[in-house]
Amino acid sequence: MENRMKQAGMRKASGVPMPVQLTADAWPRDYEWRSQQRQQWNVRASIQAKQTFNPIRSIVDGIKICPNSSKEFISLSIGDPTVFGNLVTDGTVRAAIKEVVDSGNFDGYAPAIGYQTTRDAVAKYYSCPEAPLEAKDVIMTNGCSQAIDLAINVLANPGDNILIPKPGFSLYKTLALSAGIQIRHYNLLVSTMQSQIITPTVSQQQWVSLYGVTLQPERSWEVDLKHLESLVDGQTACIVINNPSNPCGSVFNHQHIRDILQIAEKKHVPILADEIYGDLVFPGEEFISVAQLSRSVPVLACGGLAKRWLVPGWRVGWILIHDRDGIMGSEIRDGLIRLSQKILGPSTIIQGALNHILNKPPESFFMNTINFIKSNADLCFDRLSSVPGLTPILPRGTMYMMVAIEMDKFPEFEDDVNFIQALVTEQSVFCLPAKCFEFNNYIRLVLTVPTPLMLQACQRLWDFCQKHYSSST
Amino acid sequence: MENRMKQAGMRKASGVPMPVQLTADAWPRDYEWRSQQRQQWNVRASIQAKQTFNPIRSIVDGIKICPNSSKEFISLSIGDPTVFGNLVTDGTVRAAIKEVVDSGNFDGYAPAIGYQTTRDAVAKYYSCPEAPLEAKDVIMTNGCSQAIDLAINVLANPGDNILIPKPGFSLYKTLALSAGIQIRHYNLLVSTMQSQIITPTVSQQQWVSLYGVTLQPERSWEVDLKHLESLVDGQTACIVINNPSNPCGSVFNHQHIRDILQIAEKKHVPILADEIYGDLVFPGEEFISVAQLSRSVPVLACGGLAKRWLVPGWRVGWILIHDRDGIMGSEIRDGLIRLSQKILGPSTIIQGALNHILNKPPESFFMNTINFIKSNADLCFDRLSSVPGLTPILPRGTMYMMVAIEMDKFPEFEDDVNFIQALVTEQSVFCLPAKCFEFNNYIRLVLTVPTPLMLQACQRLWDFCQKHYSSST
Repeated sequence: MENRMKQAGMRKASGVPMPVQLTADAWPRDYEWRSQQRQQWNVRASIQAKQTFNPIRSIVDGIKICPNSSKEFISLSIGDPTVFGNLVTDGTVRAAIKEVVDSGNFDGYAPAIGYQTTRDAVAKYYSCPEAPLEAKDVIMTNGCSQAIDLAINVLANPGDNILIPKPGFSLYKTLALSAGIQIRHYNLLVSTMQSQIITPTVSQQQWVSLYGVTLQPERSWEVDLKHLESLVDGQTACIVINNPSNPCGSVFNHQHIRDILQIAEKKHVPILADEIYGDLVFPGEEFISVAQLSRSVPVLACGGLAKRWLVPGWRVGWILIHDRDGIMGSEIRDGLIRLSQKILGPSTIIQGALNHILNKPPESFFMNTINFIKSNADLCFDRLSSVPGLTPILPRGTMYMMVAIEMDKFPEFEDDVNFIQALVTEQSVFCLPAKCFEFNNYIRLVLTVPTPLMLQACQRLWDFCQKHYSSST
Repeated sequence: MENRMKQAGMRKASGVPMPVQLTADAWPRDYEWRSQQRQQWNVRASIQAKQTFNPIRSIVDGIKICPNSSKEFISLSIGDPTVFGNLVTDGTVRAAIKEVVDSGNFDGYAPAIGYQTTRDAVAKYYSCPEAPLEAKDVIMTNGCSQAIDLAINVLANPGDNILIPKPGFSLYKTLALSAGIQIRHYNLLVSTMQSQIITPTVSQQQWVSLYGVTLQPERSWEVDLKHLESLVDGQTACIVINNPSNPCGSVFNHQHIRDILQIAEKKHVPILADEIYGDLVFPGEEFISVAQLSRSVPVLACGGLAKRWLVPGWRVGWILIHDRDGIMGSEIRDGLIRLSQKILGPSTIIQGALNHILNKPPESFFMNTINFIKSNADLCFDRLSSVPGLTPILPRGTMYMMVAIEMDKFPEFEDDVNFIQALVTEQSVFCLPAKCFEFNNYIRLVLTVPTPLMLQACQRLWDFCQKHYSSST
C-alpha cells in the first residue's frame, strides 16, 4: 500500500506541468534553498504562485500602448459591460441590495456553500423539466471565476488533463496550470466562408448579391468533434464547454451539443459547462444548456450575475450540479462543499438579495441589453465587412465579435499582436489580439461600447487597414 | 535541467501528506481508475478535495446535539458576533454601502488585488511609524480566510511545513493540508495557576484573599519558545502567529513578540500574522502588531472587516505586506498578485465603501463592542470560578474564553467532547470542546451573547458540574 501510494504520488507529480519561462529559474533556486540549513534569508514564492499567470496579461503587458494623442483612446478590449456607463443594472437590483443592508439580517456568516434560501432561488431560476434543480444542486461562489476554479479542482488531480476550446477564454488555462493540471486544446472549426480569401472591397450587401449567401458562418466555431475525441485519455478529468463562447460569440445548436454529449458519454468524461453568457443570446437564437440534452452525462454548469445583471465586480457566481443518474455520487458534491469551506462563499449582502435580483428586473431590462449589443454587432459587422483585409464573423450572442485578419495582406505586421500594436499607436483603438485566446490572425472586439464610439472605432480600423493593406502580395 | 526538474517534481510530490482516513481508500481507487481505459463511468473527487476538511465540522458532526426540550437552547459555539442581534454594525457603515450601490460607480471589475483607492485606505488605516504601509503593500481578499489561504500558498510548496499554535484556530490546518503542505503544532504555555487543581468552591474574590493573586494567568497561552524553535527545519515556510488568539483570548506583550521575532530572525523564517482580532483587546491591554517590532523579519499580516466591524458575512479581508528590508523582494508580492487573479478579489460594492467603513464609525461604536464583551467576560469568569471542576482563564481580548475541565473529577466523561455531549443533552448549552483546537480538557465559550443568556448558561454549567463532579476521585 505504502509503495503504491508513493508510486501514485510520484506519477501524480511527474505530470505537474511548469510553464517553461518559470521553471527554468524557479526550480533550481528553490531546490538549493531547500537543501540549505537556513543560514540566511531566502524567501521564495511557491511553485503554485509561479505557475499561476494570466496569459492575457503577459501578452497585453508586452504591447506598448502609446495611443495617438491627437485621437481619443477607444478601448474595445475588456469584457466588462459597465466600463462606459451606457449599460447599467436595473433599479430593482440596487433596491434589493439596499433593503438587505438596512435589514441587518445578512451580516453574519452564511454556510460556505451559500444560504439555503439563496441556493433555492438559483435552483428555481435555472431549473427546467429536462434538467431539474434543487437547492442541494447549487454551490454559491465568489464569482463565476471561483465556480470554474472549484469545478476544475474537484474533478482533476495534478497530472490529469482537462480539454479546453481553442480559441477560448484564458482563465481555464490559468486555473489548471496553477493547480498542476495539464490542458489540451480542442479546435473550434472555422467556416469555409471565413477561410477563403474575401475580395477586400465587398460589403455584406454586395456579398449577398454576389454569392447569394451571407457571411454568417453557420458552422463556424463549432467543436472539431474528431479532434476533441482524439484528445481524451485515461487522465482526462473533464471537457470544458464554453457556450455561448468568449471570444467567438457563437451559440451551439441542439444537434451540436448532442454530438458533444455523445463523445462525453462514449468516453465517460464529465462536462464543465461555462455558461456565464447563457442569457446573452441575440433574438432568433436559442441557448440550450448542455445539461438539458443529457440525463446521463454529469455536468457542472458554472454561471453568475456578472454579465446578464451587469455587475461583474460584485463577485457572485454558482455551480449547478447536474447528475440525475448519480454518476458523480456524493463524492463530487461533498468535494465541492469541502473546497468551498476554504474561503466561505460570496458576500452575504448580495446573497440575501439574490432572489429579488433574479426575479424583480422586468424582461425589458434584459432585452434592452441584448438589443443594444445586437445592434452594435450588426453595425460593426456591416462596416468591417467592407474593410480591406478584415473578415468579421457575425456573433449570435455574448458581447464579442471576432474579426479575421488576412495577415498576408499586411506584410508590415508579423502577427495579430503587431497589428494591434500599430493600430493603437496610429489610431488609438485597442482590442485584444486572438493570441490572448491561443489563436492567430484574429482580433476580438467588445460590443458593449456606446454606438458612436463603436462606429468611430470601425472608421479608424478602415483608415488603418486602407493604409497598410497591400494587394500586391 | 529536464532531469533536475523531474527530480524536484518528484521530491515535491513524495512530500505531499494525505490524511490517513482519506488516503487508505482514496489513492488505490484513483490509481486503478487512472489505469482504466474509460470503459465505464467512474468520476472521483480530487485528492485536494479529499484532503480539504474542517476539523471542527468533523468533531461537531460527531456530537449528537439533542438539547433538553424543557430548556431553551443556548449556543456559545460560533465565533459570529451577529448571531444574537445584540451586536450590530454602525449606521455609517450601512450608509456607505448604500451610497456606493446608488452611485453605480462600483459595478464593474476591480483589479484582482483590489481598487487602488481601497488599498490606499487600508494602508492609511493600519500604517504606523514603526510599520509604514502604502497601497502597494495591501492585497484585498475575500475575507480573512482567503487572506490566510493566499499567504500560506504564496510561501509554501507541497511537502513544506508551516508552524501553527496549539491550541489554535483550525483553518490553518484546513488550508495547509488542502494544498499538501504539512503542519507542525507549537505549544502555547499553560500557567502554573491553571495547571494546579483549584478548590472547587473558591470564587475569584476568595482566591485573591486566600492566595493573594488573581486567577488572571500572566503568562498563560504564550508561545513555548524552545518548542517553537525546535520545530523549524529547512522545509519550514512560515510561522503562523495568531494574536490576539482564537480560542485563547490571549494578547501578547512587547517582550513576548520580540522573543518570537528573535527566533524568526535567527532561523530566517517569515511570519504569517493572523491579526483579525487585533482591534478587539480589552481596556488596559495593548495590541501590538508583530510588524511593529521588527524591521527585518518579513511579515504577512492578515485582517478583515469581520470582527471589529461586525460583518463577518460580507467577506472582505486583506493582506498587509511588511518587508521593509526587501527580504521577500518582488517575488512574494508578484506571487500574491498572481494568486489573486484566480478569483478576482472581494465584492466591489464593499471595496468602494471601505474608506468610509474604516473611518466614519465613531470611536464609541468600537468601544461599545469591546466593553460589552469585557463585561460578559468578567461576569462569566466570576461565575465559573466557583463551579466545581472548572477553571476559567480570563481573556484579554477577542470574544472567547477558555475554561479548563478537571477531567479526573468527572469520571463519567472520557474527554471534553463527551463532556459537551452530556452538557447539551441535559442543559441545552452548547460550546466547542478544545479538541476542535487540537487541545484537550478545555471548552471554549463565545462571549458575544446577550448577558442574561450568558448568565443562564453559567448557571446551567454550575448545575451540570455540581451533578457530575466527583470529589472522591
